[in-house]
Amino acid sequence: MTDDSLTGRLVTANHVLTDYGVLDGFGHVTVREPGADEMLVSRYQSSALVETDDIIRMSLDGTVLGSDDATYSETAIHRAIYRARDDVNAVVHHHAPAVMPFTVTDAEIEPVFHMGAIFRDGVPTFDDYDHAERGRLVVTEAESDRMAAALGDRRAQLLEGHGANVTGATLEEVVVATVYLVMNARYQLAAMDVADAVGGEPRYYDGPEESLDAMVDGVILRPRTVRRMWDHLVAVHGRE
Amino acid sequence: MTDDSLTGRLVTANHVLTDYGVLDGFGHVTVREPGADEMLVSRYQSSALVETDDIIRMSLDGTVLGSDDATYSETAIHRAIYRARDDVNAVVHHHAPAVMPFTVTDAEIEPVFHMGAIFRDGVPTFDDYDHAERGRLVVTEAESDRMAAALGDRRAQLLEGHGANVTGATLEEVVVATVYLVMNARYQLAAMDVADAVGGEPRYYDGPEESLDAMVDGVILRPRTVRRMWDHLVAVHGRE
Amino acid sequence: MTDDSLTGRLVTANHVLTDYGVLDGFGHVTVREPGADEMLVSRYQSSALVETDDIIRMSLDGTVLGSDDATYSETAIHRAIYRARDDVNAVVHHHAPAVMPFTVTDAEIEPVFHMGAIFRDGVPTFDDYDHAERGRLVVTEAESDRMAAALGDRRAQLLEGHGANVTGATLEEVVVATVYLVMNARYQLAAMDVADAVGGEPRYYDGPEESLDAMVDGVILRPRTVRRMWDHLVAVHGRE
Amino acid sequence: MTDDSLTGRLVTANHVLTDYGVLDGFGHVTVREPGADEMLVSRYQSSALVETDDIIRMSLDGTVLGSDDATYSETAIHRAIYRARDDVNAVVHHHAPAVMPFTVTDAEIEPVFHMGAIFRDGVPTFDDYDHAERGRLVVTEAESDRMAAALGDRRAQLLEGHGANVTGATLEEVVVATVYLVMNARYQLAAMDVADAVGGEPRYYDGPEESLDAMVDGVILRPRTVRRMWDHLVAVHGRE
Repeated sequence: MTDDSLTGRLVTANHVLTDYGVLDGFGHVTVREPGADEMLVSRYQSSALVETDDIIRMSLDGTVLGSDDATYSETAIHRAIYRARDDVNAVVHHHAPAVMPFTVTDAEIEPVFHMGAIFRDGVPTFDDYDHAERGRLVVTEAESDRMAAALGDRRAQLLEGHGANVTGATLEEVVVATVYLVMNARYQLAAMDVADAVGGEPRYYDGPEESLDAMVDGVILRPRTVRRMWDHLVAVHGRE
Repeated sequence: MTDDSLTGRLVTANHVLTDYGVLDGFGHVTVREPGADEMLVSRYQSSALVETDDIIRMSLDGTVLGSDDATYSETAIHRAIYRARDDVNAVVHHHAPAVMPFTVTDAEIEPVFHMGAIFRDGVPTFDDYDHAERGRLVVTEAESDRMAAALGDRRAQLLEGHGANVTGATLEEVVVATVYLVMNARYQLAAMDVADAVGGEPRYYDGPEESLDAMVDGVILRPRTVRRMWDHLVAVHGRE
Repeated sequence: MTDDSLTGRLVTANHVLTDYGVLDGFGHVTVREPGADEMLVSRYQSSALVETDDIIRMSLDGTVLGSDDATYSETAIHRAIYRARDDVNAVVHHHAPAVMPFTVTDAEIEPVFHMGAIFRDGVPTFDDYDHAERGRLVVTEAESDRMAAALGDRRAQLLEGHGANVTGATLEEVVVATVYLVMNARYQLAAMDVADAVGGEPRYYDGPEESLDAMVDGVILRPRTVRRMWDHLVAVHGRE
Repeated sequence: MTDDSLTGRLVTANHVLTDYGVLDGFGHVTVREPGADEMLVSRYQSSALVETDDIIRMSLDGTVLGSDDATYSETAIHRAIYRARDDVNAVVHHHAPAVMPFTVTDAEIEPVFHMGAIFRDGVPTFDDYDHAERGRLVVTEAESDRMAAALGDRRAQLLEGHGANVTGATLEEVVVATVYLVMNARYQLAAMDVADAVGGEPRYYDGPEESLDAMVDGVILRPRTVRRMWDHLVAVHGRE
């Protein structure tokens, strides 16, 4: 029986992103409570283990609401993005293998396939860590605010030698967008390799503008397109 | 119990191509109704979810026949190919990861193993999109007719920064041919990498002509060879 | 219940090599009947489907014995090797993805890890096809005899743009040796890539001679080592 | 029912490391008996097959204790490390595919993601084999003592053309650390490839010192962090 509540769908998102290889023991997906400055997030544990009872509510300043569960440090990533971006209602912080090479090289993620067009504004790399505060984790409020500022109004950002953050208007959208980021990164890595072998660079999808608009707004972000991919991911990567 | 009807086999083809990683939430496999200007195609949904009741009939001008289901834009790809090619009775439109690098680089798919010989005539890349019409999707009748014209009498074609179309004389043939395209692309990517490391290029299977004829007509496209690979794919990638 | 007869183990070998990705709808594993100029081989079908009743006996000249099943063309590969090599009692002919790049480039398979030492004598590429006879398949007696002559007393050989043959003294040994060939090829492809990036070549295991002798005869080919790997493959890649 | 005894957890570690692809028919994970110069290790067999009854006790000089099981040669690797390192209570010896390219090239494993920081002291390659003694296996006491000396006080080391050793303060820590080594190697291989294509090298995590300290001691090696990853691995890669 499928649990269609926001909490139920957040549990499903945890399982789907685990099975897809995006969440790897660490990393998290959160969703903003509609009409509240609060988010839903799992307790400190692997996404593979998340069940309904593990979802807690947290205010955007990091206070756990309605339970005795403890907060934990990387929730700062999510909270800072929600504070900075009214249009964002769901966030995935992760370390998917395909994006990792882009976090430690000069190569930048660029759209190489049609669905990658949602990253048309670029995926910049944040590296202004408070190093004494748990190294390459983003844990302090000041550090996470700088990170959110560096994200700006973009869809996603990388964290130097660590991973990535992806945002969405809805829970379904952020899951789907995260998968598109991973797909784009995989295809781009292969394309760069091939282009290097034949001498040249991949042809990135950087125009014409009307094409990108038609692709992003006219196709990728439409509810029925997002729904189709969400349903696919749940069917293939979810649990019954 | 296996459903050996054309509809039943189309459902199986959807599942096999999903499990093989060819259909990824999007993409579609269709088959032409014998003796009719109609095709069978799934409703707008992921191939992972396709069951018998989801298969609809559509005329080659895009009218859904015998049901209230709606048509949708990318069916234009299939319909245009059927209109242009009497010898084609099944089409797969997809975005298999292995072919993606060839859609955005100057590298061209060339036969690197014996079964790849069916692509002896080349796999050209179409990029004459109507950009204002959903970007890099092929959705209008005019656009899809140009695409079919660019395909010509070849087995397959690429779509710039998007994916590929593969054709077959039968449903089984197009599924098998799609898998050979993916295998060839994978092996070619690795071969280009290795050749680059040792200095040189892969030795493509571009002759002698009698060898290609004997391979394609004498082996690969024979019904029993197609049947063997189809049975294999159903056993390993199908559902019981 | 495990069937420990030669036929039963041949069925298991078919399933293991399929699940490992070595047999891909095509390819075959055969074993010589002890004390007879006959071999056991599956009927013409995918290895994924092989059950006990599908195993047929065939003389080394290609006559099917004791049943009405038909012979088929690529059995010539196995028969020619058995005729030429008294020390060989089992053969795998396959197209494992990792070996394919070596069949169309100047890169040669060389031992890059300890178990790869069994390929110390090299893995030469055969390309003297009778092209008019089914292209890059080896199907005639003369063609397969030339192929076996090119193999010489080596463990394995490649076929230009097609695949590989691996030999063993026993069924278990040939399965294990085939897996080592695949592992070595995978590691070598990655090592060549890395070496290319840092400028240089992988350090192949080409000496000292006493080390190779101690590795091959003292470890890899000992029955208990072969048995350990066979048991592992059956546990992980077999069917219950 | 989970067996939380040291033996039970060692069985689980065998299964997890097999499913993760670290143990491949060969390789082993051992743990030191608390307060004793003894270790627990599987009998000579694949890790895929290990059950509680297969775990034997062995003194650090190689004597099997309390059973009639036989010792075997590569246990020397584990015993030598325990003799040399009081801080090490668990060891994994393995041949994970991702580390293999680093054992035969001049490329060195360097931290490319936050969890890779535990390898900040480098992962040197041992190649001072007694070649007449089973080639590239480490089997004699003198050979293994040299190997342990080359390891020094580091977390891990490579063995030329063979594999790697990883150490931990606890069983859970060594399993988690082994997975981080594999992840780091995978990401580094991809990063080197990309960096090569754009011209340059990956930016390794080699400072500032306070960042590495905060990352390693403040995060990665904390019991709750190790526990989280162990629980994840058991959930995803263990057996129920």
